[in-house]
Amino acid sequence: MADALHGDRRSLSRLISKVENDRDTAKQVIRTLFPQTGRASIVGVTGPPGSGKSALIGAFARELSKTRQKIAIVAIDPSSTFSGGALLGDRIRMKDLAEDPNVFIRSMATRGAVGGLCRAAMDVVRVLDATSWNYVIVETAGAGQTDLDIVELAQTVVVVLSPGAGDEIQAFKAGLMEIGDVFVVNKSDLPGANRTLLDIRGMLQTYGSERPWHPQVLLTDSLKPSGMHELMTAIAEHQSYVGQTHVARRGLADGETQLLAAIKQELEFEFIPDLRRTQAFVEYGKKVANRTIDPYTAASSLIHALKRE
Amino acid sequence: MADALHGDRRSLSRLISKVENDRDTAKQVIRTLFPQTGRASIVGVTGPPGSGKSALIGAFARELSKTRQKIAIVAIDPSSTFSGGALLGDRIRMKDLAEDPNVFIRSMATRGAVGGLCRAAMDVVRVLDATSWNYVIVETAGAGQTDLDIVELAQTVVVVLSPGAGDEIQAFKAGLMEIGDVFVVNKSDLPGANRTLLDIRGMLQTYGSERPWHPQVLLTDSLKPSGMHELMTAIAEHQSYVGQTHVARRGLADGETQLLAAIKQELEFEFIPDLRRTQAFVEYGKKVANRTIDPYTAASSLIHALKRE
Repeated sequence: MADALHGDRRSLSRLISKVENDRDTAKQVIRTLFPQTGRASIVGVTGPPGSGKSALIGAFARELSKTRQKIAIVAIDPSSTFSGGALLGDRIRMKDLAEDPNVFIRSMATRGAVGGLCRAAMDVVRVLDATSWNYVIVETAGAGQTDLDIVELAQTVVVVLSPGAGDEIQAFKAGLMEIGDVFVVNKSDLPGANRTLLDIRGMLQTYGSERPWHPQVLLTDSLKPSGMHELMTAIAEHQSYVGQTHVARRGLADGETQLLAAIKQELEFEFIPDLRRTQAFVEYGKKVANRTIDPYTAASSLIHALKRE
Repeated sequence: MADALHGDRRSLSRLISKVENDRDTAKQVIRTLFPQTGRASIVGVTGPPGSGKSALIGAFARELSKTRQKIAIVAIDPSSTFSGGALLGDRIRMKDLAEDPNVFIRSMATRGAVGGLCRAAMDVVRVLDATSWNYVIVETAGAGQTDLDIVELAQTVVVVLSPGAGDEIQAFKAGLMEIGDVFVVNKSDLPGANRTLLDIRGMLQTYGSERPWHPQVLLTDSLKPSGMHELMTAIAEHQSYVGQTHVARRGLADGETQLLAAIKQELEFEFIPDLRRTQAFVEYGKKVANRTIDPYTAASSLIHALKRE
């Protein structure tokens, strides 16, 4: 662990694997590293498949690297270019990025993480936060509850959309309009980019005008690249807002959010497995199967009995 | 509730809305209806977007309806044709289906259900089971953990794939190969349908040969339609297997599965909200924010204190 803290990449990779693969080890590691956390800017990047999240993150990381910032990328989308879904051109660019000493890339499988992907992702981000990366960027696919959960650990959420693909409608439906702090219309060279930009601004005015933070909407192009400086500024502004405003603090910057996540995990991975091994559970299970008691009444009885014990 | 039990559709729709929108009402309704459940064949249908799940379910329901079976369809995929994403031709076919007295169609939004979508879906299926539908078919998008959870309530899971689209690889990655009891290569008129069929059989032989149930792999075409009788037989065979084999019983047919789901819901929607209101939670939250205690240690202390109370 000491080597990982001092910047050795192989040690860091090994430490991350341990944290991913065993929940008890993870708890020990986090116990030790926790005082060192809370320094990185944790940025969640999400959006519909095909909106070019990975390419954007790549271009963004290259720009940050030029300013000697250290960037760790955690890619959770299984179809991400980081995890192998790339076109040949992308692959070569990714290889460049992987060899950049200021950049660390880690892909996480959607299955296999012991104790849940969200638990594992949270702990991996904590490890990266503690090992002095300035930015930890978490990429998710932007579909389904898992993504919304993972995005919860970010202080700033960037939603990436592509022009003209009806992405803004899809994003709206998936609840992304509500969680985005910065919106990016990527592939700004495509027709309809300005139209999409205006549509998103309109939707934000209609549905988000009572929120204290007014998200910026930007145009980017990962290939040129363009818009990276604007994105950097927009993220920095939001980070500064989150730092100043107690009520806006969230993700891994917020104590109650972290505590709540840990409580849910304890219940899911310790309390429930213990409960399942009790005789009372087996007996109530039989009664539910026979339809002599309904599951809600049985569950209440079991939990109350346990609290009385 | 009595009217819904006696087959009045408007009463049934209203009862379902109540069950969706309020968890306490749902618990009361299920308490009353629970002894009437356990009769329907509950079939989960999942697969990648674009594999034609909705059209297949439509064609299948039409065939079942001819044999005077009563079929209820619960569509959870937000991009489903049932919920409005249909082409014009599909819409007209769906309208026919919606007017069939043997068919009942209900779409569920992925957000908005009070107390979680999985909770709501489970209770809606229970209501349909209790109101004497022979089949309750639950359609999900086949992406993300939510779908895997919802599929858990089915006794028989049908995985729908389309030929040549690399769907079998995607399904394999998403964990669908492991949960399918019947596999359908839909759009059998497309080139490569037989190839996909053989690929799936191969994958099942390699990865699933030690499982006690050997899934059938079928070709279907929703437009002709063809393969519907084979699908009906395959589902019936699996239902009969599940009925006979205690170890294979699962979904809403299994007491422990239902009990466990109810326990998780009680913890999430009652235990945790109560815990958040305690003084101890607020104090530990501050300590985590100050990094004077890590979230895992804090969570364990809180839960143990509560159990001692």
